[in-house]
Amino acid sequence: MPEDRTRRPDRGQLGFLEDSASAHVGDVVALLNESPRRRAAEMLADFPVEQAVEVFDKPELKHAAELIQLLPARQAAAVLGEMSPDRATDVLQNLGASERARLLGLLSRNGQAKLRTLLSYPRDTAGGLMTTEFVSVPSTSTVGDTLQHIRKIERASETIYAIYVLDSDSERLLRTASLRRLISGEPKAPILSICPDRDPIVVMPTTDREDVTRLIAKHDLLAIPVVDESGRVLGIVTFDDVIDAMIEEGTEDVHKLGGLDTLDRPYTDIGFFQMIRKRGGWLAVLFMGEMLTASAMQHFEADIAKAVVLTLFIPLIISSGGNSGSQAASLIVRALALQELRLGEWWRVALRELPTGIALGAILGAIGVARIALWQHAGFFDYGEHWVLVALTVGVSLVGVVAFGSLAGAILPFALKALRFDPASASAPFVATLVDVSGIVIYFSIALLILGGKLL
Amino acid sequence: MPEDRTRRPDRGQLGFLEDSASAHVGDVVALLNESPRRRAAEMLADFPVEQAVEVFDKPELKHAAELIQLLPARQAAAVLGEMSPDRATDVLQNLGASERARLLGLLSRNGQAKLRTLLSYPRDTAGGLMTTEFVSVPSTSTVGDTLQHIRKIERASETIYAIYVLDSDSERLLRTASLRRLISGEPKAPILSICPDRDPIVVMPTTDREDVTRLIAKHDLLAIPVVDESGRVLGIVTFDDVIDAMIEEGTEDVHKLGGLDTLDRPYTDIGFFQMIRKRGGWLAVLFMGEMLTASAMQHFEADIAKAVVLTLFIPLIISSGGNSGSQAASLIVRALALQELRLGEWWRVALRELPTGIALGAILGAIGVARIALWQHAGFFDYGEHWVLVALTVGVSLVGVVAFGSLAGAILPFALKALRFDPASASAPFVATLVDVSGIVIYFSIALLILGGKLL
Repeated sequence: MPEDRTRRPDRGQLGFLEDSASAHVGDVVALLNESPRRRAAEMLADFPVEQAVEVFDKPELKHAAELIQLLPARQAAAVLGEMSPDRATDVLQNLGASERARLLGLLSRNGQAKLRTLLSYPRDTAGGLMTTEFVSVPSTSTVGDTLQHIRKIERASETIYAIYVLDSDSERLLRTASLRRLISGEPKAPILSICPDRDPIVVMPTTDREDVTRLIAKHDLLAIPVVDESGRVLGIVTFDDVIDAMIEEGTEDVHKLGGLDTLDRPYTDIGFFQMIRKRGGWLAVLFMGEMLTASAMQHFEADIAKAVVLTLFIPLIISSGGNSGSQAASLIVRALALQELRLGEWWRVALRELPTGIALGAILGAIGVARIALWQHAGFFDYGEHWVLVALTVGVSLVGVVAFGSLAGAILPFALKALRFDPASASAPFVATLVDVSGIVIYFSIALLILGGKLL
Repeated sequence: MPEDRTRRPDRGQLGFLEDSASAHVGDVVALLNESPRRRAAEMLADFPVEQAVEVFDKPELKHAAELIQLLPARQAAAVLGEMSPDRATDVLQNLGASERARLLGLLSRNGQAKLRTLLSYPRDTAGGLMTTEFVSVPSTSTVGDTLQHIRKIERASETIYAIYVLDSDSERLLRTASLRRLISGEPKAPILSICPDRDPIVVMPTTDREDVTRLIAKHDLLAIPVVDESGRVLGIVTFDDVIDAMIEEGTEDVHKLGGLDTLDRPYTDIGFFQMIRKRGGWLAVLFMGEMLTASAMQHFEADIAKAVVLTLFIPLIISSGGNSGSQAASLIVRALALQELRLGEWWRVALRELPTGIALGAILGAIGVARIALWQHAGFFDYGEHWVLVALTVGVSLVGVVAFGSLAGAILPFALKALRFDPASASAPFVATLVDVSGIVIYFSIALLILGGKLL
């Protein structure tokens, strides 16, 4: 390679990259992620195709869509054609329609057709995760034939550890063989003799990726075949794609539970206005909901004016309801995600949360009453002549508000799921908003009952 | 097998289990999980050892510790001795010290030593996740030797897809070979000739399991070797253990973000009193923190009595601060978990959150002012002669409270991490409690500034 003086200052980096056949691809990707985009594209254009493919195959590569656009057409076509089809689909999905068409046009007719099919499946389904590169052999093969076949296609296939045995007539999936059994098998033995005698675990292209994850985890699979209605294999989802999907889903859940739209890029990569959009929308919706607290308080304004002492405990009481509600919601969100609970079991949960909420409310109520009594006796604050009744109001309200909060927090995820929303949208802020309004009504209603004719 | 009349009613189930060599282990586990414990133990006692081992090897098996105690000593010893050591360790960890000692006593001296070492590592480290069953060959081997060795130990090893090549003198880990390259290699070629020419990616037994996950995901590994300080392999962590650990960690995060101690068993398996304990503790702590709101309000009691109209907006204003804080906290918790942000970058985040919070607060402030003006003009409610100043107070307070909330929510996870707590403990309820107290102080301070001499 001729010395290029303009690149001199980068020597350290370049030295590392020129040697990158012996560097871990993951580390090359990390370095490219830190480089300016145009610079990264230049480096990728200089890579041998095989290595550029390895880099683009990593989902950790940032701005892959923009980078592939910046590559010379020949390199772009070679990379897209040879990278794993599931990853190529991900990259193309992040491009505008015209750019996508331009890049697809660079490919062979066969390559185009394959990618167009994959592009037609939603990203969060088995079809969207699958790759079309897998090892299959007809059921008439022997162990030796199969090994021979695998040796030939070893470098082109994403995984060779699971081998799909197809009915030699209908091409339907019959059995799964593992490479480990294959290498200890007798070469002349029929392939079916080394397959476990059971139907393979399969998914449909429309299966939700959460269900794919659950099956891979439950059965410790390296890959799971995706079949069409007649049982023919369309592709496979491999364990590493599932791990990547789990990380993405973890981010989605945490963001949703925090009460905002999921950010699909790292915090530090999001621009100011995009950040405002992602957070401002939900914040404004929650704000409008929370405005009902002002309406509720207006309703009790005359009572507040008579008994200002009651206002002191409003934040304490309504936040306790929100807190217990957010605990319950997070328990149920997770139990629904792990399928520990089914939609129809909401009433079982409600029957559990009511006594739990009452007990938790009683604990907080006791602390609250003790606090008021202590402050009154120690002379820290004077809650007036009816302080015992004020303390009672606070205690009873806490039982009511915490019980209501637990119940509302537990039922909300079921309701969201029934309405086909993600239960994880039952975020702490959402639950708190719901419980705050009712908390105020519960508190003042109990106050009217206990203090009516005395303070009110 | 002699017909056993007492079992007749179970025939459907038993029929399935007797045929369970051809059933998926995952499904057998699901069935055992649904059976009463004593019944499940009886079934397991009747299983051939090999199949019982397969069942106990699944982390999805519930009450595995109790079931192994219920097995006859001979079956228990056989299962413990043959199941994968990492899983055996998990099971033993859930037993009391005396029961654990009794079961370990049933094993060979060698088996005991192996399990005792594994038991010494914390569960959330690479040492706690690893298995000691892996394939290694000396660096002087040929491809053919290696294949021969693998064929011999195939059934005893958890994975044979990664092969560790050790220096033939020092036994230090030199290179990693993959089975896929091995089977296409020339039998006479030295094993080192088919290994990628780079140092293997390794972890220490004390490496946190989150870092293990990150490495497996980044490099798409089937397994990662765990080495001691001199570079000798102690064991390996396989991808399926990582998937299980990720599911467990997802549960932990969601529970912590909801403001409660993690439940390590499904929602439906937790007893009433355990549930109260797991939730009541945090709820009481948050309640004590929230009591400061009452103290803050007491401080402003005279002002409240003069301007009751101000109290109407307290829940609205403080909850908006809590909501924006919980958004910021969830963003930062996730970014820290994915190592998109480092501890030292807190000031960068603070510099970002301040303008973001001011902008978000301004949006909510504008909505709030519009709401008050609308209600006043439409005659829904009379906020008094100074309603314009009241609206201004609410608007300005929202800017201050939301900006403070965003800042506090973003910095809290950093602070927790610096203090060696889990950043995910920066739950929405925790952030809200923190922000509520300051929100009241901000609101009334701004009110005194704007309304001083008029209403106050």
